[in-house]
Amino acid sequence: MRKRLSKEELINGVLGGDTITLSRAITLIESALLSDRELSEEVLNAILPKTGKSIRIGITGVPGVGKSTFIESFGSYLCEQGHKVAVLAIDPSSQKTSGSILGDKTRMEKLAHHPNAFIRPSPTGTSLGGVANKTRETMLLCEAAGFDVILIETVGVGQSETAVKGMVDFFLLLMLAGAGDELQGIKKGIMEMADGIAITKADGENVKQSKQAKNEYQNALHLFPPSESGWYPKVLICSAVDKMGLDSIWEMIEEYKAKLKTNGYFDQQRKVQNVDWMNEAIRQGLLINFYNSPKVVDQLELLKQKVADGKITPQSAARKLLQDNSNSAK
Amino acid sequence: MRKRLSKEELINGVLGGDTITLSRAITLIESALLSDRELSEEVLNAILPKTGKSIRIGITGVPGVGKSTFIESFGSYLCEQGHKVAVLAIDPSSQKTSGSILGDKTRMEKLAHHPNAFIRPSPTGTSLGGVANKTRETMLLCEAAGFDVILIETVGVGQSETAVKGMVDFFLLLMLAGAGDELQGIKKGIMEMADGIAITKADGENVKQSKQAKNEYQNALHLFPPSESGWYPKVLICSAVDKMGLDSIWEMIEEYKAKLKTNGYFDQQRKVQNVDWMNEAIRQGLLINFYNSPKVVDQLELLKQKVADGKITPQSAARKLLQDNSNSAK
Repeated sequence: MRKRLSKEELINGVLGGDTITLSRAITLIESALLSDRELSEEVLNAILPKTGKSIRIGITGVPGVGKSTFIESFGSYLCEQGHKVAVLAIDPSSQKTSGSILGDKTRMEKLAHHPNAFIRPSPTGTSLGGVANKTRETMLLCEAAGFDVILIETVGVGQSETAVKGMVDFFLLLMLAGAGDELQGIKKGIMEMADGIAITKADGENVKQSKQAKNEYQNALHLFPPSESGWYPKVLICSAVDKMGLDSIWEMIEEYKAKLKTNGYFDQQRKVQNVDWMNEAIRQGLLINFYNSPKVVDQLELLKQKVADGKITPQSAARKLLQDNSNSAK
Repeated sequence: MRKRLSKEELINGVLGGDTITLSRAITLIESALLSDRELSEEVLNAILPKTGKSIRIGITGVPGVGKSTFIESFGSYLCEQGHKVAVLAIDPSSQKTSGSILGDKTRMEKLAHHPNAFIRPSPTGTSLGGVANKTRETMLLCEAAGFDVILIETVGVGQSETAVKGMVDFFLLLMLAGAGDELQGIKKGIMEMADGIAITKADGENVKQSKQAKNEYQNALHLFPPSESGWYPKVLICSAVDKMGLDSIWEMIEEYKAKLKTNGYFDQQRKVQNVDWMNEAIRQGLLINFYNSPKVVDQLELLKQKVADGKITPQSAARKLLQDNSNSAK
């Protein structure tokens, strides 16, 4: 067992940009122990004034689109430009122990070894909400440690996009040219969320097809109602192999940030995200407290059975449980 | 003001199949008054043993697919076969007063005048959950009043499908032939939920195209993983104008019911739906109690502001509110 770091050691280590302490602070966040939760909350509130200075970028795309390869190239490009890049992931389907998803790091070997990069695997959790919460807090720690670009990858298929959209400034969708309508159709809901689309693997024989796809998607985006922010999503092409287009993608993100900083939407969006996060944390807390309360545990199975068998309406059962529970002072 | 009906009058009226009393019982369900809620809960629990004998059919499709026309024709067909048909709707976007959506009934004039039919507009509500709850309870009342076919229409676009899917036995998706990939792509998530697809407006010049679409969709459905129930969704064509295909759709639904009754999935699905409904009611109840609690009301705005401004983490704010609230015995 390693020595438990004190609150001060954690705060100073994170603020000093020490990645070993950063890793340990994240592990603390991911812990289910109440004492760890209390300590991590104190650390988070202490470092809070030093957070928020990064650009938070969500990256999604169907399996096979080349997300890891893109993040490896894009992250390396940014590191070479002098940025400090943290890569986080949200994979609600992951029940594996910490370290297994991005953690083997063979997926992003080059980036993992760059001194300006920090890669952290998706936290494990029983619910998407729980996983998303931990990723949000990890993001704050990384910001406090001086990382100015946070890349958040969606690993799960179809569930985690909304969660990631709700915690980033810019949402980048990766797509493939010529992947067939079947695939693309499923992604249309996601397209509406995108602030930008990058068509990956635009190299060799794919270049022509990718340029064509770029035009098609650009036209398709015109079908959506304009964004509240006044930003018109762009479609770009890139190649991780040829290192082509990465600079344009970063320029797009910088242009987005400049525009939305000016019209106030950037900060407004973060405020809304913070309040949404609070409400989500309340919702989760209420459910956890409720279903763990001894009075509820005592009654739940019997009522569930009655409800399933149609002996009592679900609404009545819910009301009974809620009443009994709210009468019990803790 | 009409005289308030007693609990016994309501129960006996509903069980006797009196549609005037049924309407008043539904109005009671839709009331926000606590005394009305208590009375309606007693009524619902009293009639509960007489519920569940109908087939519950959800009907969805994009605007323009002809949902009202289909329901008018299909409902009339079933009424002529001797069935008693109740038509309900879920429209979470409706903030209008009761009676305005389906209620003007001009949309389904013929069906509205059939003695075997009962049409009830979408309840109003501030949340989809609230609206869905009322529709579920209305469904139970209609069953107790002897309606053996419940048609539940989704009126809202894109939000209400999951809610309807969660309260019906059979989920029917209406589609148009030749409506373009743009439209169909958006519906792919919904297609996966469908137990059957009906291609509407298969009349006149549309017949050939509709048959072709039927084959295409049937092929597309094969791409989805097989349903847990062992049922393979079918694609049929129909015309409300020519009264064509309505019998086949009903046969499909009867075949579905027979098959799933035999393998136990029909009853199993209803049990799961009931428990889900209870959990959803608990979730809603917890949130309502929480956000209406005076201690929370007192603190919420200030904490929200602090969270928005990054002075306190959303998680800390949530925890503070949850702690203070759980300490207050009611």
